[in-house]
Amino acid sequence: MAVFTSVSEAELIAWLGDYSLGQLLELQPIASGIENTNYFVTTGNGRFVLTLFEKLTADELPFYLNLMAHLARHGIPCPSPVASRRNQFLGSLNGKPACIATRLSGKSVTAPSEAQCAAIGAMLGQMHIAGQSFSQVMPNPRGAGWRAATAPQVRPFLDTDQAELFDSEIALHAQSGATRLPQGVIHADLFRDNVLLEGDRVGGLIDFYFACSDALLYDVAITANDWCMQHAEGKLDDARAQAFLRAYHAERPLTDVERCAWPSMLRLAALRFWLSRLYDLHLPRDGELINAHDPRHFERVLRNHIATAQAVWL
Amino acid sequence: MAVFTSVSEAELIAWLGDYSLGQLLELQPIASGIENTNYFVTTGNGRFVLTLFEKLTADELPFYLNLMAHLARHGIPCPSPVASRRNQFLGSLNGKPACIATRLSGKSVTAPSEAQCAAIGAMLGQMHIAGQSFSQVMPNPRGAGWRAATAPQVRPFLDTDQAELFDSEIALHAQSGATRLPQGVIHADLFRDNVLLEGDRVGGLIDFYFACSDALLYDVAITANDWCMQHAEGKLDDARAQAFLRAYHAERPLTDVERCAWPSMLRLAALRFWLSRLYDLHLPRDGELINAHDPRHFERVLRNHIATAQAVWL
Repeated sequence: MAVFTSVSEAELIAWLGDYSLGQLLELQPIASGIENTNYFVTTGNGRFVLTLFEKLTADELPFYLNLMAHLARHGIPCPSPVASRRNQFLGSLNGKPACIATRLSGKSVTAPSEAQCAAIGAMLGQMHIAGQSFSQVMPNPRGAGWRAATAPQVRPFLDTDQAELFDSEIALHAQSGATRLPQGVIHADLFRDNVLLEGDRVGGLIDFYFACSDALLYDVAITANDWCMQHAEGKLDDARAQAFLRAYHAERPLTDVERCAWPSMLRLAALRFWLSRLYDLHLPRDGELINAHDPRHFERVLRNHIATAQAVWL
Repeated sequence: MAVFTSVSEAELIAWLGDYSLGQLLELQPIASGIENTNYFVTTGNGRFVLTLFEKLTADELPFYLNLMAHLARHGIPCPSPVASRRNQFLGSLNGKPACIATRLSGKSVTAPSEAQCAAIGAMLGQMHIAGQSFSQVMPNPRGAGWRAATAPQVRPFLDTDQAELFDSEIALHAQSGATRLPQGVIHADLFRDNVLLEGDRVGGLIDFYFACSDALLYDVAITANDWCMQHAEGKLDDARAQAFLRAYHAERPLTDVERCAWPSMLRLAALRFWLSRLYDLHLPRDGELINAHDPRHFERVLRNHIATAQAVWL
């Protein structure tokens, strides 16, 4: 259950007095998500999502809200934060930083088709291009510094075989050339559950709270590792991966340097989630146990990437 | 037929290369409208409207485009212009200034119900409030200066009775106190055909190309004169007018000065369209004859307003 801070209709009606959204018609808690409290809100003006930020602070939030506004303004289907009468995206509700944004249509899928993988590939390319004119910068909070700090904390929980793989991958990417790749704003967490689909069409990209500035190809790899995966085996599905990459490439052509870096980026993207899942499993913060994912999935993905040294398919 | 400048699929695909909107799926001309060329455009990212401006120039357009972006950002359902990869709303296509904006849902109605009049009243109030934080200013191009310049040109086409009414109303409003009323951004043309409804809900306000800075109550009067009218008789319908005004008042309470000015604003709003319709009928510019409206409708409305000196209903 994602409602950490409850909001009553009376509280919301009072809060909405600072917006130009019309009368409140419906308020409905959203049960998914582990970082924020979310409600569906319907007013006379349409359908919205109210978010109360449980961890991110009012100092950190403008990057994410301005990014979503920027992308929406460029026609990318993502939540568009609504400005208050004082022209601010960020408000405060029940003691938490809060924002109301447009609600998108569609639903997430668990077993995407080739056509759906192509659609998300194309949309990711669009998003990367639209992000090029966004001026704010946010170093990746799950980047090299985070890996270096986190690795020693989770290493004691690994067996010998795992530790060997872990050490070599951490060392490899500590000096990897990701900073030489084309950079920009990346979503950094565009898993299937963060995309709303309407049939084969992308209706919405959501949950931008891991977005940051990093190598665009890293975002491509993170997305492929989820969307194009045969999850039982932890191996990429060739047909879906090809459809995904070709569609991305048609929107933002990959450079030669990026093609060469593809196998390495797939491994880095797998390592990042292996590492964070190990951390969340073995060193949970209060109240986070419920949604801990199995780290072994990304260990398998990583081993398969190393075994296949997958070339880029275009 | 509103397509003055035709756009082929190939031309649009090339033009869309400057945007992050995905592949073109459908291009469909829109037959209504007399000032601009409009097309419905569907891309991988959603549904949009392409507008080629036939009269407004690249110098004049930023006010309107920035206003729509501002209102959309505040949750008002109006077309939201899409920024190009160079972060610009305004482009150029086939030699005309051009813009692509989100497409809204709903359709216009000819015989609005009380509930629909209430919905548009509430939305107009929301729009006026959201417009208060818009910083650009545009003097009304159909304001006092325009009336003074246009009146002598159309007066020769009036009979004695009409001329008497005309002269006295022009004189009355030449010194009217509209500038003492609360000011802001107004739509100035929110007739039924510029509002998309989904049932009783306002799905979209469109066609902002008469928007300007003026008395908010003037906008209320223009809107009431169309939405709450018994068109055959040219008289306001009490029930719809009351529903409309009460809903507006609930969003933006009318001041005492505004309540006093209401009968005068209704007359000024009727005079403005009587005058422009006389002008369009008797002094048409090339190619504008087709859509000339009958000026006598607003003459009747004006006479009825004078006869009833309609008080504000709240």
